[in-house]
Order: sequence, then C-alpha cells, then structure tokens
Amino acid sequence: MPQVLILMGSDSDAPIMEAACGVLTDLGLSWEMTVASAHRSPARVMQLVEAAPARGVRVFIVGAGAAAHLGGVVAAHSTLPVIGVPIDSSALKGLDALLSTVQMPPGVPVATVSIGKPGATNAAVLAAQMIALADSDVAERVAKYKAGLAAKVEKAAAKVEKQG
Amino acid sequence: MPQVLILMGSDSDAPIMEAACGVLTDLGLSWEMTVASAHRSPARVMQLVEAAPARGVRVFIVGAGAAAHLGGVVAAHSTLPVIGVPIDSSALKGLDALLSTVQMPPGVPVATVSIGKPGATNAAVLAAQMIALADSDVAERVAKYKAGLAAKVEKAAAKVEKQG
Amino acid sequence: MPQVLILMGSDSDAPIMEAACGVLTDLGLSWEMTVASAHRSPARVMQLVEAAPARGVRVFIVGAGAAAHLGGVVAAHSTLPVIGVPIDSSALKGLDALLSTVQMPPGVPVATVSIGKPGATNAAVLAAQMIALADSDVAERVAKYKAGLAAKVEKAAAKVEKQG
Amino acid sequence: MPQVLILMGSDSDAPIMEAACGVLTDLGLSWEMTVASAHRSPARVMQLVEAAPARGVRVFIVGAGAAAHLGGVVAAHSTLPVIGVPIDSSALKGLDALLSTVQMPPGVPVATVSIGKPGATNAAVLAAQMIALADSDVAERVAKYKAGLAAKVEKAAAKVEKQG
Amino acid sequence: MPQVLILMGSDSDAPIMEAACGVLTDLGLSWEMTVASAHRSPARVMQLVEAAPARGVRVFIVGAGAAAHLGGVVAAHSTLPVIGVPIDSSALKGLDALLSTVQMPPGVPVATVSIGKPGATNAAVLAAQMIALADSDVAERVAKYKAGLAAKVEKAAAKVEKQG
Amino acid sequence: MPQVLILMGSDSDAPIMEAACGVLTDLGLSWEMTVASAHRSPARVMQLVEAAPARGVRVFIVGAGAAAHLGGVVAAHSTLPVIGVPIDSSALKGLDALLSTVQMPPGVPVATVSIGKPGATNAAVLAAQMIALADSDVAERVAKYKAGLAAKVEKAAAKVEKQG
Amino acid sequence: MPQVLILMGSDSDAPIMEAACGVLTDLGLSWEMTVASAHRSPARVMQLVEAAPARGVRVFIVGAGAAAHLGGVVAAHSTLPVIGVPIDSSALKGLDALLSTVQMPPGVPVATVSIGKPGATNAAVLAAQMIALADSDVAERVAKYKAGLAAKVEKAAAKVEKQG
Amino acid sequence: MPQVLILMGSDSDAPIMEAACGVLTDLGLSWEMTVASAHRSPARVMQLVEAAPARGVRVFIVGAGAAAHLGGVVAAHSTLPVIGVPIDSSALKGLDALLSTVQMPPGVPVATVSIGKPGATNAAVLAAQMIALADSDVAERVAKYKAGLAAKVEKAAAKVEKQG
Repeated sequence: MPQVLILMGSDSDAPIMEAACGVLTDLGLSWEMTVASAHRSPARVMQLVEAAPARGVRVFIVGAGAAAHLGGVVAAHSTLPVIGVPIDSSALKGLDALLSTVQMPPGVPVATVSIGKPGATNAAVLAAQMIALADSDVAERVAKYKAGLAAKVEKAAAKVEKQG
Repeated sequence: MPQVLILMGSDSDAPIMEAACGVLTDLGLSWEMTVASAHRSPARVMQLVEAAPARGVRVFIVGAGAAAHLGGVVAAHSTLPVIGVPIDSSALKGLDALLSTVQMPPGVPVATVSIGKPGATNAAVLAAQMIALADSDVAERVAKYKAGLAAKVEKAAAKVEKQG
Repeated sequence: MPQVLILMGSDSDAPIMEAACGVLTDLGLSWEMTVASAHRSPARVMQLVEAAPARGVRVFIVGAGAAAHLGGVVAAHSTLPVIGVPIDSSALKGLDALLSTVQMPPGVPVATVSIGKPGATNAAVLAAQMIALADSDVAERVAKYKAGLAAKVEKAAAKVEKQG
Repeated sequence: MPQVLILMGSDSDAPIMEAACGVLTDLGLSWEMTVASAHRSPARVMQLVEAAPARGVRVFIVGAGAAAHLGGVVAAHSTLPVIGVPIDSSALKGLDALLSTVQMPPGVPVATVSIGKPGATNAAVLAAQMIALADSDVAERVAKYKAGLAAKVEKAAAKVEKQG
Repeated sequence: MPQVLILMGSDSDAPIMEAACGVLTDLGLSWEMTVASAHRSPARVMQLVEAAPARGVRVFIVGAGAAAHLGGVVAAHSTLPVIGVPIDSSALKGLDALLSTVQMPPGVPVATVSIGKPGATNAAVLAAQMIALADSDVAERVAKYKAGLAAKVEKAAAKVEKQG
Repeated sequence: MPQVLILMGSDSDAPIMEAACGVLTDLGLSWEMTVASAHRSPARVMQLVEAAPARGVRVFIVGAGAAAHLGGVVAAHSTLPVIGVPIDSSALKGLDALLSTVQMPPGVPVATVSIGKPGATNAAVLAAQMIALADSDVAERVAKYKAGLAAKVEKAAAKVEKQG
Repeated sequence: MPQVLILMGSDSDAPIMEAACGVLTDLGLSWEMTVASAHRSPARVMQLVEAAPARGVRVFIVGAGAAAHLGGVVAAHSTLPVIGVPIDSSALKGLDALLSTVQMPPGVPVATVSIGKPGATNAAVLAAQMIALADSDVAERVAKYKAGLAAKVEKAAAKVEKQG
Repeated sequence: MPQVLILMGSDSDAPIMEAACGVLTDLGLSWEMTVASAHRSPARVMQLVEAAPARGVRVFIVGAGAAAHLGGVVAAHSTLPVIGVPIDSSALKGLDALLSTVQMPPGVPVATVSIGKPGATNAAVLAAQMIALADSDVAERVAKYKAGLAAKVEKAAAKVEKQG
C-alpha cells in the first residue's frame, strides 16, 4: 500500500523523479512510481487517481515537462494534496513546465516545488511534512532530516573553506 | 447542430472569446459557446467533448488563461482538431497561458493562435479554413474574407496617410 | 488556537491574502493572519514560527512580493509544511516573487501556488487538503468544496452560453 | 500530388522537420518537403504557395527559427490552413521563433505547435486531423494513432515503474 | 518625392509612428507615411516597396506590433536600408514585436530601434544619419540635433536639481 | 559639499529618485541630485564624475531606465562606488534597465538595487552603509534606521491582524 | 582608410565579429577591427570614435555582450550611424546584451541587429546598405549579394528536398 | 581578522566564488570564505553574521543560486554592506538568483552584481571600493587596478586587431 503515488508524464522524466524515491524511503514512507500522460493516456491517469485513496495513497507527486498539465489533471480528479515537479525537458528550460504547473485557477491547487531534481527531492520532503500532520513517527523523521541538513552544510563548508 | 464548439475555462473569458462568434457567423459556420473548466468541472468537459462529434462538431475552439490546460484536456479526449486561444488573465500577461497551450507533447497537438482578442478572431478563421477542406462554400467565404482584409488596410491607410 | 498561520511580508499584501481567510473559515479551519518581514523584522518571524507548533499551528501560509524570501525563511525554521503565495507587487509583475518562492534548494520545500488572489484562495484549499489527512471532517468539507466548484461552473456557463 | 507541403526557412531545420514526414506517412498522407526563405527567397515562397492548391496541397506545415516569419508569409498568400513549427535555432532558445509564429494579427492565423521536434510531430498529427474532416480514411488512422499513444505510455510505464 | 517611406502594419500604430515625422522634418528630410500589412495586404506592401526607389525613397522606417513581420518583409523585397520600430500593442508588451523584428537571419538585416515612441524618434534620427552619408546638409543638421540634446539635458537638470 | 551625488538619465526619473533624498537626510548625509544623460550629454556626465571627489563625493547613486548605461558610464570614469537604480520607464517594465545596470563586465561593478522606488530607498541605505565604514556617526544612524524597520512592521501588523 | 570601424568590448567577441569582416570585403568595403571597452577603457573608445571621421570611417559596427553599453557609448560620441551586435556571452544568453543595445533613449539610436553570428553578418550588410546610399558601386554589390541569397536557398533546398 | 567575509549557499558555488578571492588579495584585503545556507543552516548563518563585526569584517560577499535568499538573510541580520552574487545553478540560468537577490524591499539593500564569475570578480572590486572610503591604501590599489584594466584591453586589442 503506497502512501505516496509518484506519477510522471513520460519515462524520460524518471531520472529526475527518482530523486524523490530515496528521500521518501529515508523518511519512512511507502511509495509507488509510474508513468501516465494527461494527454496521451488520460483514462489511465483517471483510473490511477480514482483508485488511489482505496490503495492507501495520501499524497500525489507529479512530474511533467513542457505544457505540464498532469499535476492539474490529477488535482481535478482528487481531493488529496497534489505536489507538482516542473521538469526541464523542452527548449524553454522548464519555464513552460513551471508556469503550467503553478498558475492553477482558484479552487484547485497544485503545490509546486522547484524545477528538476531539487524539486523532486523537495516533493518527497513536502509529502512527508503533509503526512507527518497525521503521523508523529514521520514528523520525527522529518525533524531529524531537516536537522541533518545543517550538519551537511558544515561538512560542505569544511571542504571549501579558505582564508587569504 | 454546431460545427464549431467554443469552450472557455471561465465566464470571465467570454468578452474575449465572443470575438470568434461574429467571425464564424460571417464565414457561414454554426457554433455554440459555453464554459467548462478542465480543473473545476472535468466531467463536464469530457461529456461535452465526447458528445460533440455526434452533434456535428468538427472543430473545437478553446480559450483559457493562466495554467491553461483546457485545450490540452480537450485534445486528450478527442481526435478532432483543437484550436487554443491563450487568454491574458493573470499577472503574467498571458505568457503562462501561451506556454501551457502551445507546448504540447508529441502526438497531441493544440493549434495555438495569438493571445487574447486577436487570437479569438484568428481561431474562427482557422476553424473555417479547416472546415473549408471539406466544404467549398466555406472555402469561398474564407477566400472572400481574406481578400477583404486588404481593402480594410487601404481604408485604414487613407485615415492616417500623411506627407511632410 | 489557529490551525493555519497566515504571514505576509507587508500590510499592503493584506487585500490579496484575505482571500485565504474566507476559504479557510468555509472549510472549518481556524486561522490567524499577521505581518512579519523576513528582512525588516527577522526576529519577529522566528518568534512567530517557533511559537507556532505549541499554539496548534499545523500549516503556514506565507505571502510575499518582489524578492519574496519569507516562505523560505519560515521553511528554514520549521518542519511544518509551508505554502507560499507569490504576490505581484513589483515592476516585474510577480515573476520575481514566483521564482524567489518556488526555486528552493533540495531539502527545504515551499509549496508554491499561483501568483496573487487565485494563489491565496488555493493556499487555503491546499492547507485544508493537508490538514484533512489527519481530520476526516475537514476531508469531507474539502470534498464538498471541490464538488461545489463544478456547480459554479455550470452557473457561469448559463450566464454566457450562446449559439449562432 | 502532395497533400501536405512542408516548408522550412533553412536546410539546417531539416533534422527537426523530418519528424513530421514519418508521422504523415504513417497517417496515410502524401507530402513534399523543401526549403524556402521568407527573407532570402520571397519569390520562391510565393511561387510554391500559389502553385500549391493546383498540385493538391491541402495544408502547409512551416518550420522556422529566430524571427520566424515564414509561417506568416505563407498565410498571407494562401487561404489554406498553415501550421507553424517554431524552431530553437538562435541564442534565445526558440522563444523568438514561438512569438514570431504565434502572435499573428487578427484575420491571418498560423496554427502554432510546440517548439522543435515535438512540434514537428504535432504538426503532422494536426495536418491529418484537418484533412480527416474531409477524408474518413485519414480520420480512422488518426483515431488509431491517438489510441496507440496510450499503449505506448503503458509500455513506458512498465520500463520505469517501481515501488519502495 | 519622399526620402523616407514610413510604413506601419495598422492605423492604430499611427500615434506612435508620428513621432518620427516631426523629427524627419526638423532634420530636413521629406517623408511619406502610410499603412500596409505584411499579412493582410502583402501585395500592397510589395507594390509600395518596389515603387519606392523610383520615387526617391532612400530609407524605410517600418513600425509593427505582435508578430511584427513587416520590417522583414520589406527587407526581403528591397536592397535599401530598413529600420524597424517594434510596437507595444499586444499582451506581451512589445517583447514579441522586438524579437520578431530584430532576430533576422544572416543576409537580410532590419536595423531595429527601441520599442514604441522612443524608437520612432530614433528611427528618424537613424534614417537621417544614413542619408547624411551622402548629403552634407543633412549631416550638419544631425550634428546640430545631437548637440542640442545636451542643452535639453541641462534644462531638464535645472528643473529637478536639488541639494540636501 | 555633497557626500552622495545622485544622477539620473532624465528629469522624468526624478519622482522615483527623490525617494533616496529623504532617506539620506534622515541618515545624516549631504547629497546633491541632478540630471545627466550618458547618451545625450556624455561630456556633462564625465565633468560631474571627475569633479566629484574634490567636491567631497564618496558614493554615486545613479538612476536610469531602458538601456540604462548611466551607472556603467559613471563606473567607467570613477573609482568610487557606484549604486545603480534600474527605473521602470519603458514597455519592458524595468527588465531592460535591470539587466543593463547589473550585468557589468569583470572589473567595473555597479552595485545594483531593486527596480524603482524601493530601489531608490535602498540606494540611500546602501550609500550610508558604505560611508558608515569610515564614519561611526553614520554607522549609528544606520543601525537605528534598521532597528526602526522592525517597529514599523509591528505597527503594520497591528493594522491588518485578524483571526477566524 | 577603413570605411567601417568594427569595435568589440572584449577579444573573446572576435570569433563572432569576424563574421562581419568577410561580408564587408565581399561587398567591397574597407574595414578595421579592434577591441575597446566602454567600461574598462573609456578613453580608448572616445579616442577611436573621435578620430574615426577623419580616417574615413562612415559607419561603426559594435559588438558587445552582457550589459552591452559599447554601442550606446559610441553613439553618444559620434553623429555617424552605429550598428549594434548583441553577443551571447553571459548566463542570460544574449537577452541582456539585446536589451542593453536596442532600448536606447530618444535621440541616440543604435541600429540593432540579431544576437551573435547572424547579427555580425547582418551588421556588415546593413553597413553596406547605408554606404550604398552614397556609392552606386556598393549599391550594385549589395543588390548582387541579396540576389545571391535566393540562389543559395535553392541549393539548400536541393540538399534536403524529399517526398513521401 | 578577515575584512571581507565570503559566504555561499552551497559548496558547489565555490568555483565561482573563488574568483573573488584572488582579486581581494590583489587589492590588499584579508578575507575568509565559507559555506552557510539560509535554508538548511539558518543558525550557522546568523552566528557567522553576528560574530562578523567583532572579527573585523567590514563587508559581506554572498553568492547563491536559484531562490537565492542568502544575501537577503545576511542583510536582515547586519548593518554592514552586503554584496550579492547571483549564481547560475538552476534550469533558469541565474534569472531566478538575480531576481531573488536584487529585488529587496525598501530598507534592506543587497548590492547586486552580475551573474556568475564576472559577478564574483566585481563583488571583490566593489568590496574594495567600499573599504577604500576609510582606507587610502586600498583606495590607491583600487585606482591602480582600474587603471590596469585599460592596459589589458589594449593587449587584447593587439591580439585580434585586423584590417581588410
């Protein structure tokens, strides 16, 4: 039973979206990742989205590039929170995907995170923060994860620190 | 029996999309205009799109602003040509609507025209050009319409022509 | 005890952010709205953010314009989910606020929604969707709210529907 | 006798525009592809455009980069539908070609599709959708093509699907 | 016999393009201003452009908005220098007109000046600088005009100069 | 003897640049404000810049719009710090002025602040921060000014604070 | 005695600007190319510009990237026509150079051509078109050059022409 | 005791920010460079910033990419001048970092320089220009450095100068 369902518009998005998987696992969440296109396989999208709640899904993470409608289409068919990851896969470097994902009309939000890999990581953290509202174990892991970030910064600092 | 079905994402788009109606009538095409939101009423969109061929619809004209997914969603559910009119109704002045409408993935085109009112007019002309492929009366009216444009330019020239 | 804490960078953002309040109330959530600037009153921001969990806050909604750092700063000091509303209050029409809010580095997400008023509304819906994960009453109200959107679209359609 | 005439502004656009050829053939349409520059060989453009109807051409597909005027110039000299493919061949990554192609004045549409290769594919599908209005064989092939897209998505899904 | 032929794509561009007329007169050049659309009246454009040299025209000034092809089309049909004034008449605030005018392919330049009224003024000055290469009277007037700019700056300074 | 010399490219920039004057006075700095155009009165610019050090000027504040070269030209002729305020006075809403001001080549910085009035205020604060490095009175006033910002935020909060 | 003086802001611009040299030679014009930075060597710029008329220079061609002020600075110090080539040498891909070059204030035009190599070629053609106003030999060569473009297009067409 | 404290948001920014170190050393200033993230290690940032004045720091140089908040956060916690270097490390090529750094609200400036390496160099020069206000030795070195730029331009000119 996946708590987080990761959808992407094309299998070429997988190397980006996989950044979410490791983080979700680290934060103690079960997940499933598959491909479903808002434009090429709309029936598949609806089926996956409508079946999701009964399968235990609490949050969607959706990655798409160019005219990135997948987040919006998932949000149109579900009342669960939808997180959108704009993917830089067109000539316009992800600006099209960002605007297509974030500029949703009133009533149907897509929680948009950064373009590309940093966004896939952030989608996982955000999904965990949402689920943590109902699960104190996850909340604890999120807190530990975020505390760990500062330690990583200190290590990074040690590598490049200089004086002159 | 409307030959052209005009859909828009919000009734606030009507003053823009109405520019298409007069031109369609002038070009001898029947039409119907209504509101259906890809995000707020996806079932209504699908119903309208799936019922369209049997009602005689040959072409869709779709207007939407911001994260303008409506054109793409209509195109996902139909094999008829879909014309998209990006509407300038957000802070980003239609750039978001343009990119969301035009940057469709391979296999599912939306024939995108200019942002706003010029686009609504052009959507009507383009719909007529498509239908004209199967209807020589419409073809003739399109030819006359386009020939008339040059005459209008000459009148406009007469108004502002100057020498010094 | 507010479940949602709405922060904004300047009191001039209030007419935009107020769009969130009514929706939160409709969805049965308690909220509090105040001003705190990441740049002009950083201590106030930290105080509000750090005191929030003990006061019952589950989600932050943060509105800011221009170099909109407030969402990021709140996210840096909390493990609760942070929703960012970019506000169109500079010459660049909210593009600066959007990029400053959404392009967060890996590990520290801000769930970004649309620019301006549609975004403030969506922030409220998204906050409710998050809280609904732990509260089936809220989940029900969200479901009703989203179902109600389709009815509104049909009313809007009735107003502008035409044939020719 | 080509049903679709593919024009491009420079032979360096050929690797992009060739994406249209295979799709047209798959959809059962005859086509011809050549080079003609709106700026460097305007007489050639006009000749090709004016001779086209008598040669059986029903739709133009036009690819151009930078200040991409070719679509507009073809549309100025024909009443047949013109599909424009913006090509990413300048420093500005196709944004110039997109705006030059799509922002046509009222009365003279260019049906614009996505930038680059996805757009060339989409131009072929769109041309077939237009011709299908008068040719039920083509209509059937388009329907089959679009139905096939969903199957490809399922195959793509199988390749990257994972759980954790 | 006009030395400078001012063309614009629409009579709505006249209030902008008129800024060129006064400057040309001040610099001692004869001019003619009319409307001709690259897309709606291509024959008229070609006629005006081809007749121009025999009528004494030395330089074209061309104003157009949106997908501003007029400069490029004039340049395609003439070997005289063509100056392009991008006009801010679409939702995209002249960015479309600028890119459509300036990004010409190698071999067919359009000398592009600033967007809108400052550009119309500059087109006149630039036309005079070109004609001055063959006419020392014009050269002298240009020199005087440019020298006069500094005096105007000093007057402007006197109006707002302050100390504190 | 002005410590800060405020230059602007046009008297129409004065209503923006005046925002700097009050702040400088509040921070105990003497200033002078005048107009000098990099393009229309380059001699005047050089004269003002070269005379400045002997007149006691420590910092330049330079406001300009469109192709905003004034900051760069001042920086080319002085070794004192130059602060640039991009002004939103063209169709492109200050994006042109921002890029023209900030993207200086290595070796010749212009310290760029926000577009428009917020930038003019910030230029004054930044000038004071620079001068404070050599003047502990100014340092104290800057510290007081920045401390005062937080108090203003609290007042602003009081005005719009609400609960629901 | 060079008729055209080619200036560029950095020697790294030379591979782009050299595209102008061959075209100028083909069109029978003498030229000189050197480096002079508006920001790093303003005295050198002024010296070159002020000495130019006496050395026979009729037109300046100026290439610069990023905050590309060189065209504007040359135009500020000369009454000869100045052609600006924006160079793509910063993170922003030449958009900064384009806006810095083209958006000149009223009275001081820079005749801007396309970004990068196509622009360098076009600058040479434009310079020749200007000089041709006073030199019928050059006018003839320009006419031949432009006529030759169409022949090249036909050759290019022959290379990629296909049918299917 | 470092006079300039160089902070960057990630160790991946080091290759860019190191461009500042050499210049600072050449200009006779002591410096220290380390990593501190506004979002991942906010406590570290505040500690470094608050300890800085007592350690002799006079100016901060801050490099960050994407939603580049670090400059703003440092400026929120200090009254010393803060110089921001936007870094091109996201899909949007530094436009996000530029707008996040420069568009600060009134009262809290970040002195923004060019994107990337040219900006890191310029940050060092600008820091020296600020410190030079209180240190005539540094002022002299800055003057020598800027004078040296012109000599380098002449050498660069010698390398590429040509005639034809």
